[in-house]
Amino acid sequence: MNEISTILQQYKEGGLSLQEAETALKHEAAQHETGRIMDLGFAQIDLERKERCGFPEVVYCAGKTVGQSVRILSALMNKYTNVIGTRASREVYEKLAPDFPAVQYDDLSRMVYQFTDKTPINGDRIIAVITAGTSDIPIAEEAALTAEIMGNKVQRIYDVGVAGLHRLLAHCEEIRKANVNIVVAGMEGALASVVGGLVDKPVIAVPTSIGYGANFHGLSALLAMLNSCASGVSVVNIDNGFGAGRMAGIINGMR
Amino acid sequence: MNEISTILQQYKEGGLSLQEAETALKHEAAQHETGRIMDLGFAQIDLERKERCGFPEVVYCAGKTVGQSVRILSALMNKYTNVIGTRASREVYEKLAPDFPAVQYDDLSRMVYQFTDKTPINGDRIIAVITAGTSDIPIAEEAALTAEIMGNKVQRIYDVGVAGLHRLLAHCEEIRKANVNIVVAGMEGALASVVGGLVDKPVIAVPTSIGYGANFHGLSALLAMLNSCASGVSVVNIDNGFGAGRMAGIINGMR
Amino acid sequence: MNEISTILQQYKEGGLSLQEAETALKHEAAQHETGRIMDLGFAQIDLERKERCGFPEVVYCAGKTVGQSVRILSALMNKYTNVIGTRASREVYEKLAPDFPAVQYDDLSRMVYQFTDKTPINGDRIIAVITAGTSDIPIAEEAALTAEIMGNKVQRIYDVGVAGLHRLLAHCEEIRKANVNIVVAGMEGALASVVGGLVDKPVIAVPTSIGYGANFHGLSALLAMLNSCASGVSVVNIDNGFGAGRMAGIINGMR
Amino acid sequence: MNEISTILQQYKEGGLSLQEAETALKHEAAQHETGRIMDLGFAQIDLERKERCGFPEVVYCAGKTVGQSVRILSALMNKYTNVIGTRASREVYEKLAPDFPAVQYDDLSRMVYQFTDKTPINGDRIIAVITAGTSDIPIAEEAALTAEIMGNKVQRIYDVGVAGLHRLLAHCEEIRKANVNIVVAGMEGALASVVGGLVDKPVIAVPTSIGYGANFHGLSALLAMLNSCASGVSVVNIDNGFGAGRMAGIINGMR
Amino acid sequence: MNEISTILQQYKEGGLSLQEAETALKHEAAQHETGRIMDLGFAQIDLERKERCGFPEVVYCAGKTVGQSVRILSALMNKYTNVIGTRASREVYEKLAPDFPAVQYDDLSRMVYQFTDKTPINGDRIIAVITAGTSDIPIAEEAALTAEIMGNKVQRIYDVGVAGLHRLLAHCEEIRKANVNIVVAGMEGALASVVGGLVDKPVIAVPTSIGYGANFHGLSALLAMLNSCASGVSVVNIDNGFGAGRMAGIINGMR
Amino acid sequence: MNEISTILQQYKEGGLSLQEAETALKHEAAQHETGRIMDLGFAQIDLERKERCGFPEVVYCAGKTVGQSVRILSALMNKYTNVIGTRASREVYEKLAPDFPAVQYDDLSRMVYQFTDKTPINGDRIIAVITAGTSDIPIAEEAALTAEIMGNKVQRIYDVGVAGLHRLLAHCEEIRKANVNIVVAGMEGALASVVGGLVDKPVIAVPTSIGYGANFHGLSALLAMLNSCASGVSVVNIDNGFGAGRMAGIINGMR
Amino acid sequence: MNEISTILQQYKEGGLSLQEAETALKHEAAQHETGRIMDLGFAQIDLERKERCGFPEVVYCAGKTVGQSVRILSALMNKYTNVIGTRASREVYEKLAPDFPAVQYDDLSRMVYQFTDKTPINGDRIIAVITAGTSDIPIAEEAALTAEIMGNKVQRIYDVGVAGLHRLLAHCEEIRKANVNIVVAGMEGALASVVGGLVDKPVIAVPTSIGYGANFHGLSALLAMLNSCASGVSVVNIDNGFGAGRMAGIINGMR
Amino acid sequence: MNEISTILQQYKEGGLSLQEAETALKHEAAQHETGRIMDLGFAQIDLERKERCGFPEVVYCAGKTVGQSVRILSALMNKYTNVIGTRASREVYEKLAPDFPAVQYDDLSRMVYQFTDKTPINGDRIIAVITAGTSDIPIAEEAALTAEIMGNKVQRIYDVGVAGLHRLLAHCEEIRKANVNIVVAGMEGALASVVGGLVDKPVIAVPTSIGYGANFHGLSALLAMLNSCASGVSVVNIDNGFGAGRMAGIINGMR
Repeated sequence: MNEISTILQQYKEGGLSLQEAETALKHEAAQHETGRIMDLGFAQIDLERKERCGFPEVVYCAGKTVGQSVRILSALMNKYTNVIGTRASREVYEKLAPDFPAVQYDDLSRMVYQFTDKTPINGDRIIAVITAGTSDIPIAEEAALTAEIMGNKVQRIYDVGVAGLHRLLAHCEEIRKANVNIVVAGMEGALASVVGGLVDKPVIAVPTSIGYGANFHGLSALLAMLNSCASGVSVVNIDNGFGAGRMAGIINGMR
Repeated sequence: MNEISTILQQYKEGGLSLQEAETALKHEAAQHETGRIMDLGFAQIDLERKERCGFPEVVYCAGKTVGQSVRILSALMNKYTNVIGTRASREVYEKLAPDFPAVQYDDLSRMVYQFTDKTPINGDRIIAVITAGTSDIPIAEEAALTAEIMGNKVQRIYDVGVAGLHRLLAHCEEIRKANVNIVVAGMEGALASVVGGLVDKPVIAVPTSIGYGANFHGLSALLAMLNSCASGVSVVNIDNGFGAGRMAGIINGMR
Repeated sequence: MNEISTILQQYKEGGLSLQEAETALKHEAAQHETGRIMDLGFAQIDLERKERCGFPEVVYCAGKTVGQSVRILSALMNKYTNVIGTRASREVYEKLAPDFPAVQYDDLSRMVYQFTDKTPINGDRIIAVITAGTSDIPIAEEAALTAEIMGNKVQRIYDVGVAGLHRLLAHCEEIRKANVNIVVAGMEGALASVVGGLVDKPVIAVPTSIGYGANFHGLSALLAMLNSCASGVSVVNIDNGFGAGRMAGIINGMR
Repeated sequence: MNEISTILQQYKEGGLSLQEAETALKHEAAQHETGRIMDLGFAQIDLERKERCGFPEVVYCAGKTVGQSVRILSALMNKYTNVIGTRASREVYEKLAPDFPAVQYDDLSRMVYQFTDKTPINGDRIIAVITAGTSDIPIAEEAALTAEIMGNKVQRIYDVGVAGLHRLLAHCEEIRKANVNIVVAGMEGALASVVGGLVDKPVIAVPTSIGYGANFHGLSALLAMLNSCASGVSVVNIDNGFGAGRMAGIINGMR
Repeated sequence: MNEISTILQQYKEGGLSLQEAETALKHEAAQHETGRIMDLGFAQIDLERKERCGFPEVVYCAGKTVGQSVRILSALMNKYTNVIGTRASREVYEKLAPDFPAVQYDDLSRMVYQFTDKTPINGDRIIAVITAGTSDIPIAEEAALTAEIMGNKVQRIYDVGVAGLHRLLAHCEEIRKANVNIVVAGMEGALASVVGGLVDKPVIAVPTSIGYGANFHGLSALLAMLNSCASGVSVVNIDNGFGAGRMAGIINGMR
Repeated sequence: MNEISTILQQYKEGGLSLQEAETALKHEAAQHETGRIMDLGFAQIDLERKERCGFPEVVYCAGKTVGQSVRILSALMNKYTNVIGTRASREVYEKLAPDFPAVQYDDLSRMVYQFTDKTPINGDRIIAVITAGTSDIPIAEEAALTAEIMGNKVQRIYDVGVAGLHRLLAHCEEIRKANVNIVVAGMEGALASVVGGLVDKPVIAVPTSIGYGANFHGLSALLAMLNSCASGVSVVNIDNGFGAGRMAGIINGMR
Repeated sequence: MNEISTILQQYKEGGLSLQEAETALKHEAAQHETGRIMDLGFAQIDLERKERCGFPEVVYCAGKTVGQSVRILSALMNKYTNVIGTRASREVYEKLAPDFPAVQYDDLSRMVYQFTDKTPINGDRIIAVITAGTSDIPIAEEAALTAEIMGNKVQRIYDVGVAGLHRLLAHCEEIRKANVNIVVAGMEGALASVVGGLVDKPVIAVPTSIGYGANFHGLSALLAMLNSCASGVSVVNIDNGFGAGRMAGIINGMR
Repeated sequence: MNEISTILQQYKEGGLSLQEAETALKHEAAQHETGRIMDLGFAQIDLERKERCGFPEVVYCAGKTVGQSVRILSALMNKYTNVIGTRASREVYEKLAPDFPAVQYDDLSRMVYQFTDKTPINGDRIIAVITAGTSDIPIAEEAALTAEIMGNKVQRIYDVGVAGLHRLLAHCEEIRKANVNIVVAGMEGALASVVGGLVDKPVIAVPTSIGYGANFHGLSALLAMLNSCASGVSVVNIDNGFGAGRMAGIINGMR
């Protein structure tokens, strides 16, 4: 299905406003893939990212209209085997599905993705994704899926928060075997320090906004993780599962 | 040594300004111990606190002039065996020492105190005071001394933060034997949750301002402790060793 | 009703997604109650908590899917007489009700619970639950119910905030008779300090998010309570009625 | 002593830098009291304030150089009987004293003032200044002195915080007799609400920065007072004793 | 209509849950108007407030169930001519209307009230209610109605913010004639300082949450007003029109 | 269509409540365009703004009722060719459209406007509006449209954030040609500093609330932009596209 | 005096540590002015800034050692007529003075500068620098001096804050004549909005940290200015007089 | 020199108080190196850290007394070749120097260290340490020294902030060659995102507290870095050079 008909189709179905459709069509004509960038007017798609960084641009769908997200993801899915859109509504997935049969949607993490090349690029080096509670799983899944789609083996270890140390210690062996650890925790975020003290591998800490009251939307876990008394711990934004998965993947690929 | 001569002496040595001395003398005349309150003009000393709460009023010296602190502490030390002043400068101690030979000063916790009745009131029931690091000791000592002067046995367990779990687990036995636990920790304050998960006794958590950067003067530990995923944990103000010692003492006295 | 049919039933009714159902079934096979932990994949249920802490694990339902909450609560309700789920939607209750005829739901506090063993474990020792206003009652009920289900006698004293001191003083007798006091207040949270000054028993302060403007979702009451000039006061998280009820219960059980 | 010689004198003694002295002299020549404003270059002194508002401009000395403060206060003291400088260093007082024999300095409140006309302007209507603790007295004195110099009778009631309600209730009579109440409190600031509930007169609440930790330099008291559940309470800035004294004076003068 | 039938009626219509109805009925029996307090179980109604403070208790309806609000307001409306409920839903009004024909509801300010005694108690002394913008009117109306129902004459001066000074200066005369000024402003809240500089009467400043971005829900206006360089300005909570109206009324009644 | 019939029409359709309609009609009679201000009761419309500032008052519709917004905009659209309402709902547009055929609505920026005089007032001097991402476009459009309606030529350069510097450098020429630059960015807001370092023209930075977690609704970008290490950068409120467009327009008009 | 002897001299006098001196000497050898950058190891001096932006790099001395500041400023003063160092200690000035006879130091603003080319580059176009109070003058002087050294005429209008509007209105004429206005204000920062409403030229607002309490080190003025209801106002960092002066200079140079 | 004489010596010289000396001596006797931990009473030294994590415990000296720091560092320096103390005063160094001739002190980073084994453990894999400005160097040196002492090659690239992109681009080659990048920046912290976009290796971002005003002690850079639009960036605490150096070293050692 070519670009112009896609635009018209979306316009008819309300995915694009009149204004958006006009803009899109105008750009279609002018669109030059000038070596490095595909210019859609409302977005400049980086076409050398995969060459430069090993993976194509990842699309952050929050704040974009459905039409914008679909247009950008279509362009990438036409070009690459593995493509990720984060914080996407199910509607984005539904608009993509007819044209891209391999596209998938994960309700928990709200990721839309095409994952057709499953070659592991980092052999048996495992990234462990560990959560303090069940409520942290959506963010953990964002991290785990990101790492998997980018070619890593992932081990999930969920609900092993510090209030019941034996739950954590029961998984100590697995945690120590992992090459990189991602720790996902809300509330007091203490799990990052405890895991950091158990291993000699890097720990990527992801504070989550799980909790209430003096949690202040993840601030408590964020501050706790930044102040970790364990070394070998660094932190990404609150609820940024994608960022942690990406960072862990980059580290896992080093040799 | 009577009150009037104390005032004059202090005035001569600069501990009281002219204005303060005048006020003090004026009140000396008018001072009625009307059953419940001794009115010094700048302070209303509660004379029934010991009867009502088991321990006389504790004097928070920060923000008071040396002269004011000395006047209030003198009045209490004349009347009771065990008296506590917190956040006191060494100067307060030095002004009290000549008249009160039993008075002591602890440089770490900045407490000035008279501790002449050492009868344990709560038998062998132990309050454990646990710190995450060496830097938390000054606040821990404020808690420990407070509890001791109020008649409790205290066990100090220092520098057992979560980044090296084995240090903590090595003291697990002692911690479980304690009747009440005070956990003093700065940085990410994770120790409170971990201890809370190990015991079935109350844990009083004291966040400290130890740390830097995103610690924000103790905010990180405070928020972490308030958001503890362990139950049986409650929290006092940042650096409030006294409050924790007092609360633990009250709980330790319950039967 | 066995676990597998429960899972299938829930899947059919939409309580579990396809993905969740698969995961659940996979774990059903593998589920080992290896002494201490029942591993559901998305949750590690602590089976020694009751032995260790006197009460089984309490399930915090916010952030969990309905299916997850139901699965965890079912497992616990099959095993124990008294079980608590906090911050639960009515839907969780409705899914549990057919299989667990004793299950109850409290609309105010949003607790779902099974409370079949009503033996008082702490005799006549009373926990008073005191609120500043009518709007604080939902949080107070969370505290009161928690304490009751865990075997304590509870006395409710509601709407006695400090702007009308005589309302409070009229209940002074009852407050002084209680063994532990829970003070639930929003806005300026002053009630904790006033109660703390009236009694020589521990006060657990619960700031609530009741108010508006410079209340900042409970921050005003939280800070006020942490800065209480009364000793014998410690604080739990904003709106954390459960935590206060649990802490008070632990203290009430000491002897 | 004329203005020019004052400037030169101050320059010699280091109170004014060369640059400041030059500027001052330049303005001396050009200075026109054009009806309403005396222009000193670095300050525009409002000469109609007394006519318009009943009291001349009050000089906030913090952030001004000693030379600037002295120059402005000199100009006002030459013209009016009662003049106030707040947050002044003792040095400002010492520079003024030779020329203005009536000038006084209060070490606690750091006010410098000339108070030669003591005619009460509001008869027997009393402003009560009430503090929670001894440490709040410096701010309370700023309020009390301000009100007195502006012609009001003031009653000081100090150290009657809510942790010992009987101390407050012992002064209930006096508090109810006052026409306006100023409540000065740090920490949890609860006193404002309690007083607000006892009286049917306006309460001006002054949060102080007394405290530590989660006090956050007065934020706890400020938020508590803004969220007071008592009506008839309004609030001024943290540590703003002057503002409270002024506001209370204005209200006391209404009829 | 008697209390018991009211309860039953409300229960039938869903305004009270089963649990609430039971509680209400239980209290109906036990309800003693013991001189000073009517105890409804979930609320302690202060029956001496009017005698003590000149106006009956005002009911803050946010956070209360409709049933609770209606019960409390009914009790007061039966007893007094002028009664106020703030932050009430229209539903509360609709439940009251059949029994209290004089009850009114204001959509803007969300106040429900009975205002049958319109005797002015403060003669011609006017309270001016001034807003910076049109969007501040709902809060201003809460202040204005409160003051009116409590017996004051009110003059509304709306949309005279400082970005167009001539709009303000055009009303200078009226503002100066008022006995008390209430200034209601969001965004940068500058209007309070400007009005404070124009008058020699008290200014009650009400920050509103009008604005966006770095307004932080009224924080910008709140801080600005607390830091006003004009004296004679004090502040109430963000969006607290009621508090300002009440405070202004108390001041307006002084003589 | 005259004013009175407009009011009645709106009342019938529910755009104005009874109360609003009464007020509006009352003012209609009394409405004097006294030289400078049209007084609608709920709004004082500045009629000299265009003369004074070159453009009529801009109406901020958030917080106003639909009826109020329509009334004010009607008054202005009757009088001027180019009129702007910001943060308007589509409903405002729909109420205006029948009477003002030239009125337009932009869904992205939520602006309603009448733009009939398209004479460029600043010749070929271009304002560049640059965004970091696609999600920043709604705010950027508010800025761009504002500048255009006020008579400026605008060049849009969208999605050139710093994580892919070559995208920005590809537009370096255009950016350097612009007379004023508006940089619209959320997240870390780094684009403002980078653009500020590339040009010697003024940069107006607009932080947006795009992002999540430690973005804190635009705080991260706001602080970053205020701390820009590049000179020649100043900042407007979070999401204040209008303010940036207006400021840029004023600067673009200087000569 | 050549570079090497300068380094040795500074080392002898303690301005450079041994380590710093070694590093400096090492770089001296290697220092290439490779077209665009002079590399001192600890600093990369931009040698094309003047060509690109019309003025050489300005040195922010806070956080640099005296030795580092002196080295960088020397390099620039050798090359350019007009050079600025901000936030410099007097010691930096004293080390520069022997070698650069034209160097000057301003105690108020803590600027060190060489200002030998006084050619006005923007003719008679005036930048007005306006302060709310006397205490804001140091920041205002930083702005004024920056603008002057960069070739602009500056008019200082000090102490015209909004609490006495007539002081401001008395300077209305001058303010309206200015081409750009810089408004420097602490406390509530209201002056920016008022000036913004009076003029049709750009206003650069500088919040200062003047004030106390809920001023929170300039936050109150910063938020107020960002929320200004006047358009044509943009804001720089708290106390950033330099940034405002630079921005105003750039704008003043446009034509 | 044995431990007991060290203690006595320090006591004599005032490095230990009487109390500290007593405690130290008491522990000397009891000190068991029980396999894993050396217990000094005030500190539990982890003796298996090197085996477990590849490097002995690092001592954070802030908040410890000089005597405590010296005792802990002595114990480690006796046992290991490479030892680090961070945030140490020069006095700690001076007390260690007589006994440990290899000990060094770096004034900028305030690190005290023994670095006798300089074998590179990670071959030619380089860690680049990049700063935005000269003022960020002290923190950068903490990172660089940490990495070096732990066996890594480090390349320093200082003062290449984003306001002059050509300075950064001039070092692009070196940055791309590095195996791990540490970016140290205060103010707006934009450098982390820009570097993150240039490389496909991990970036560890260190916000510094360099700046003033709305920098809020490093908060601006911290938030900016957490919100980085570049992937492959994670963050450590404000000013935590050590943490970044350690994390980078761990990553650099992966293969």
